[in-house]
Amino acid sequence: MKKFINRVDDFLSESIEGFAAAHDNLVTLNREPLYVVRKALKPGKVALISGGGSGHGPLHAGFVGHGMLDAACPGQVSTSPTPDQMMAAALAADTGAGVLFIVKNYSGHLMNFEMAAELCEMPNASVIVNDDVAVENSSFTTGRRGVAGTVIVEKLVGSLAESGADLQACKAFGEHVATRTASMGVAFSSCTVPAAGTPTFKLGDDEMEIGVGIHGEPGRRRAKFESADEIVAELLTAIVDELKPASETPLLVMVNGLGGTPLSELYLLFGSARAWLEARGFSIARVQVGNLTTSLEMAGASITLSTLDDEMLRHWDSEVWTAGMRWGM
Amino acid sequence: MKKFINRVDDFLSESIEGFAAAHDNLVTLNREPLYVVRKALKPGKVALISGGGSGHGPLHAGFVGHGMLDAACPGQVSTSPTPDQMMAAALAADTGAGVLFIVKNYSGHLMNFEMAAELCEMPNASVIVNDDVAVENSSFTTGRRGVAGTVIVEKLVGSLAESGADLQACKAFGEHVATRTASMGVAFSSCTVPAAGTPTFKLGDDEMEIGVGIHGEPGRRRAKFESADEIVAELLTAIVDELKPASETPLLVMVNGLGGTPLSELYLLFGSARAWLEARGFSIARVQVGNLTTSLEMAGASITLSTLDDEMLRHWDSEVWTAGMRWGM
Repeated sequence: MKKFINRVDDFLSESIEGFAAAHDNLVTLNREPLYVVRKALKPGKVALISGGGSGHGPLHAGFVGHGMLDAACPGQVSTSPTPDQMMAAALAADTGAGVLFIVKNYSGHLMNFEMAAELCEMPNASVIVNDDVAVENSSFTTGRRGVAGTVIVEKLVGSLAESGADLQACKAFGEHVATRTASMGVAFSSCTVPAAGTPTFKLGDDEMEIGVGIHGEPGRRRAKFESADEIVAELLTAIVDELKPASETPLLVMVNGLGGTPLSELYLLFGSARAWLEARGFSIARVQVGNLTTSLEMAGASITLSTLDDEMLRHWDSEVWTAGMRWGM
Repeated sequence: MKKFINRVDDFLSESIEGFAAAHDNLVTLNREPLYVVRKALKPGKVALISGGGSGHGPLHAGFVGHGMLDAACPGQVSTSPTPDQMMAAALAADTGAGVLFIVKNYSGHLMNFEMAAELCEMPNASVIVNDDVAVENSSFTTGRRGVAGTVIVEKLVGSLAESGADLQACKAFGEHVATRTASMGVAFSSCTVPAAGTPTFKLGDDEMEIGVGIHGEPGRRRAKFESADEIVAELLTAIVDELKPASETPLLVMVNGLGGTPLSELYLLFGSARAWLEARGFSIARVQVGNLTTSLEMAGASITLSTLDDEMLRHWDSEVWTAGMRWGM
């Protein structure tokens, strides 16, 4: 295992220290329990909190700041953060309007966020993101997994919360966005979790995992390597079958790299996705291409579509300033 | 070779088509000869043009837009663009104040940019970037290579040009910035150029290339894998020996991923670099961490320092809107 690392046990703490130091205008780091909280908390604003295993950067700590999250709780790589992290983050981020937890649908995350929610004394609610249409149940999940669509939920609800909406409105909007968002990914290689030291799974030189999870969970099928156009057609067919967008519905198209795929390939994927969608009469309104929800150095990518309405479109375009996404500021 | 690709011969054209479609609010694509040009050209502004082999994304096309470049010419992967691309881009981007070519120091690039400069009828000048302190001469270079420091030159000169400075002032400032900028990188793995189909070089499971070039050129030494702190110390020692910053000089620190390294490791590297610099009394003023000048999917990273003066600081902070770097807009 070759990684920029000193000692395996210090990987998470050193990485998050570096992150917080690089973005000390945006976030404050709390070491014990571990969370990052937005520096410029806004009194009376609903606090948005997410968290998950590390290694998916910029998700979630990279989305703390104006217009997205108020706090993020990093767990060890591929491991849920603990309830005490979430409770401490909630206490630090709450400014009187309550806390909305944005939770990717993994059994461990759900259990820990539910425990935190029960113990929190301020008003709180949760939005569960389960955008991965690949499989119904998986290694760490009952139901569908939460993957890159989480970024879209965090951006849109973050914008609504920034505008002063109350806790119930933020929760309802989050669920609305989650329902209109679907993703599917493919892996060409595994990643190596530092604490494990060996690849999470093995793929042959001519194989890919269609529908892979962001922790390397199995997808729909292990297949022989195909062309970009064939892969895109399979991912988009599954996503469109789920969302069934009308041809005039404005779509947000996100092409997300899993960490080890060059940007040039992600743009090629977007070009292929655009051709596929336009050939079928769909309308692309917004585009996001980049490494947003990664799996360490996994080679691969996912595609996410959201069917936008006017409110979602407005909140997508609104200003945001985080480490991982910034415009208008 | 597993890549998101349809046919090897179409890789560059399909990738740049996808890029231009994803950012059609920022750039216009010209297919023959191949270049991207800023959509909102500013009459009377010096046109900044760069280019190079593809596979280093977001460099250079990803830096076309407000506050950086006016046009970029993509060559095939690891191959210089041709003089006719540069001339056509210059004609398209010039709005009367002349053209400044920003050229990474590779023999092929220099030759082609010089040829274009001679044939261009509008006033033009060039800035050569040679920030890589690793080696004096290399596979494709006489003198030092131009690497990630190019991003800093493009940002700072881009800001000055945006403010209305003339061609000679932009050239002089570009050379000033280039002189105050130094970089060095390390690779843990090779990349695979699509047209070659096999890795550019081989590294053992416990080896790294210290001082690697962004095309996989040999560096200072092939070494046994070391800790992040040891690697950072070697890179920063070389860079600081070159720049010899005074302790009060504000530094811009850029930690650049080469494409296949997780963001969490890049932040760990920044934390390590910060500790090394602060222990020696240096002052960090600005930080940039991310994949800015990549080598396809190469695992590895580089560190760049710039010694800032007030003018450089102001131009770093000024607004920018490109695919690869955006703030204030």
